Amino acid sequence: MPDLAFEDFVPGTVTTYGRHEVTREEIVSFASQFDPQPMHLDEGAAAQSMLGGLAASGWHSCGIMMRMMVDNMLGGSRGMGSPGIDEMRWLRPVRPGDVLSVRQTILEARPSAKKADRGYVKFRFELLNQAGEVVLEEVNSIIFGRRTQEALA
Amino acid sequence: MPDLAFEDFVPGTVTTYGRHEVTREEIVSFASQFDPQPMHLDEGAAAQSMLGGLAASGWHSCGIMMRMMVDNMLGGSRGMGSPGIDEMRWLRPVRPGDVLSVRQTILEARPSAKKADRGYVKFRFELLNQAGEVVLEEVNSIIFGRRTQEALA
Repeated sequence: MPDLAFEDFVPGTVTTYGRHEVTREEIVSFASQFDPQPMHLDEGAAAQSMLGGLAASGWHSCGIMMRMMVDNMLGGSRGMGSPGIDEMRWLRPVRPGDVLSVRQTILEARPSAKKADRGYVKFRFELLNQAGEVVLEEVNSIIFGRRTQEALA
Repeated sequence: MPDLAFEDFVPGTVTTYGRHEVTREEIVSFASQFDPQPMHLDEGAAAQSMLGGLAASGWHSCGIMMRMMVDNMLGGSRGMGSPGIDEMRWLRPVRPGDVLSVRQTILEARPSAKKADRGYVKFRFELLNQAGEVVLEEVNSIIFGRRTQEALA
């Protein structure tokens, strides 16, 4: 994994990464623990719901996307965490058999006004299915350590 | 569980519910699957991080809150899903041994402009620890079926 620092995130850059094939078993397992609503647990009940068939909890989709972000970008980076999510939209159901990946767009990068050793990078993360459709869109900032400070030290 | 419909959500109403005691095992288990960053997996690495000690993945906190929402409010309701999250802030670390509950505030309720059988309820959900501190704050809308339509039918 690359040693990504604040300086490495250039606004406008678009990257696509990750591959995760969704199974019925993991949809039901996640929902049983965190979101036991019928449309995430049972095909019959799901068919009668707005989702029109068994689909993953929206929070499960967030977890799947996070894992691909860690495996392909955050892991090994100078990431220091995130203050939160500016906006998130669940746009389409995630079904068993879907093959998901992440499209990452860097929206903004600004040094911290208070702490010289770090900066905020604002991203748009989109979770894509095998048809290239966006199933989940999320805008959020992540804090990264700055490399520049080393040269100044 | 009560049969909660759109009409039952009155703006200004504040409710507190749920109880979940967080374990080290579940923090590590969730992080291993969805967010394998050192501060969620290993005490030593976590002590060196911004979190200052082992803490749950922010997405794990979201899942814990969702489960309490389903068990105490959404389950048995006429909930039809959510379009997304307007804003979410991770405010404090969630540690092993923390005892969490949910404070729910109804911000707004408006009938759907397009579909007469449903309406949108906008909530603020706060995840509280045993000290009454807010560890996670989330604003989002949930769609609920309307009871009124039955009388009109």
